Amino acid sequence: MIEGHGDDSYKYSQPIIANFSSNVFNRVDLSALQKHLCQCLVPTDATSCKCSNLLTCYPEPEPFTLEARLALKYHLPARSVMVTNGATEAIYLIAQTFRGTNTAILQPTFSEYFDACSMHGHRVTSIYQLSFGDDIRMLWLCNPNNPTGEVHDKQAITFLILAHPEVCFVIDQSYEYFTLESLFTPEEAAGYPNVLLLHSMTKRYALPGLRLGYVTGCEGLIDRLRTHRMPWSVNSIAIEAGLYLSEHELSTSLDLPAYLEEAKRLSAALKQLGGLEVWDTRTHFMLVRLRVGKVSALKDYLVRKHGILIRDASNFEGLDEHFFRIATQTPGENNRLLTAIAQWFSEY
Amino acid sequence: MIEGHGDDSYKYSQPIIANFSSNVFNRVDLSALQKHLCQCLVPTDATSCKCSNLLTCYPEPEPFTLEARLALKYHLPARSVMVTNGATEAIYLIAQTFRGTNTAILQPTFSEYFDACSMHGHRVTSIYQLSFGDDIRMLWLCNPNNPTGEVHDKQAITFLILAHPEVCFVIDQSYEYFTLESLFTPEEAAGYPNVLLLHSMTKRYALPGLRLGYVTGCEGLIDRLRTHRMPWSVNSIAIEAGLYLSEHELSTSLDLPAYLEEAKRLSAALKQLGGLEVWDTRTHFMLVRLRVGKVSALKDYLVRKHGILIRDASNFEGLDEHFFRIATQTPGENNRLLTAIAQWFSEY
Repeated sequence: MIEGHGDDSYKYSQPIIANFSSNVFNRVDLSALQKHLCQCLVPTDATSCKCSNLLTCYPEPEPFTLEARLALKYHLPARSVMVTNGATEAIYLIAQTFRGTNTAILQPTFSEYFDACSMHGHRVTSIYQLSFGDDIRMLWLCNPNNPTGEVHDKQAITFLILAHPEVCFVIDQSYEYFTLESLFTPEEAAGYPNVLLLHSMTKRYALPGLRLGYVTGCEGLIDRLRTHRMPWSVNSIAIEAGLYLSEHELSTSLDLPAYLEEAKRLSAALKQLGGLEVWDTRTHFMLVRLRVGKVSALKDYLVRKHGILIRDASNFEGLDEHFFRIATQTPGENNRLLTAIAQWFSEY
Repeated sequence: MIEGHGDDSYKYSQPIIANFSSNVFNRVDLSALQKHLCQCLVPTDATSCKCSNLLTCYPEPEPFTLEARLALKYHLPARSVMVTNGATEAIYLIAQTFRGTNTAILQPTFSEYFDACSMHGHRVTSIYQLSFGDDIRMLWLCNPNNPTGEVHDKQAITFLILAHPEVCFVIDQSYEYFTLESLFTPEEAAGYPNVLLLHSMTKRYALPGLRLGYVTGCEGLIDRLRTHRMPWSVNSIAIEAGLYLSEHELSTSLDLPAYLEEAKRLSAALKQLGGLEVWDTRTHFMLVRLRVGKVSALKDYLVRKHGILIRDASNFEGLDEHFFRIATQTPGENNRLLTAIAQWFSEY
């Protein structure tokens, strides 16, 4: 496990006023879900074991009920959906299932693909473009990509999937609800024998505390993953939240086109500060490089002087101590960040 | 994963009036914890990211805060405690860390040891007494043992631990709070270089829905396990519950000596029914063998006619279709079970 992820506010004693460090869009109104979960936490009848009480009864050993519900929603057979303890469990299960294979990871990207593949004895190659050698049997791709915000062209990926039936394509679409670019639907992906799609309820509904993700693909591939999962890995509250969300829409303040416009404005304003390179993004977060100075110093300064948290991106493969990642927040918070960075430059 | 665990009430449409199928002692007053968790589910300040809100912030990638708290409580260095997504995650992590080794499992016992070791390429030997061959490098022992209720003699285990420094002893003490026999303390076990103790918050506090367990041992062994765990495997609500429980005692109706007396009474009454063999137990649950008929038929009858759920134990290694397991309930519920089984025999 790498040292240093986003949302590491627990390391600081200062109150965080604006948090750019996590890619989770957290302006979702969760009050209805919270109310529902609280009702489920309190037993309605102490002697009944039909679980009105989420604490005191075991979750289903495998969360089949939620899997069937999601399958119905996405027009898939139930065997094509596997619900996991966050998308992270899916990553580790896939690496374990394909233990010891030859794997390419499109870098820079989320570090867990490399960690999981290394742990399970893969021979891992880092690639920086969508091309790979003859010996590769598994390819990991994050789309939209963390931390760059890039979205890979769907047709280009499709071409590779068809041209390389011997390669299993693992496409992490955790940020699928935060782009206007064309991505694979679960149904499309399940039509190929060699594609696994990762999905995150965490990212979509701002629920990282619960740990809830799922993976979709053709039945044969998902069946292989299932033989490697441990029982009860998804807790009762996460399952209940998943069932609730499959039936109820949460009201959210997300106006995606407007949000991505604001991301563009933030990107342009950062560029105008000078001293920064900003990667072009197709989603709400972006990668930034400091031309002078180290991100560790900037991060420290922003927390201590301004209560602002950014993501030090120096521990992503291929990046260094000059890189950081930020997720677009409200215009007011974004302006606060711009001012704070300008001030850091002026004091530098 | 085996098909068929306890607490499988979700398979039946009938209401369950008395549930003997799970070993979880569920007459614990959780109201204070429930109230606390509900408060933590609702954000106190929507823009703050200091997580008053358990849903919307990531848990610690590794639950170090809770590990340190438990270490303090058990007089251990912090590195000697690893908190897991239920004791089940600990079982799979241990099997993974010692991948491909020669393993003995004292049977019949909880099936996950075998499943986890098989998944990770161990060469597994079933043993039925505490003795094993020279080539064994790992031994799994459940103490008190599920499903038999037997407690292995502490001195006999200690002798083996000292005599076999080349063997890693994994002792699952998930039921440690439900026996009066002498068991290892975390501090004692951490004094050996070759012992891992598994502990379950689920069993102690009746919280199987949350998924919260931990493993203790010497720092070197726990360090090895830590290199194999994935981030964020323990959800925020489980961590918060663990922190709460480390500071607050829950009021519980558990009078252990009286409860174990009731278990003895139930055991004796079952024997008196005739047609049943009952294993001697040192804890609250017990293994029973039907001399005639199949447990599947008895289980079905008890659910449908009496709303009583028992644990079909036929899928434990070394057992067959004649075995079931029950956990002692209230005297009234136990009498209801006795009457129902007597009735089944009379109708048989």
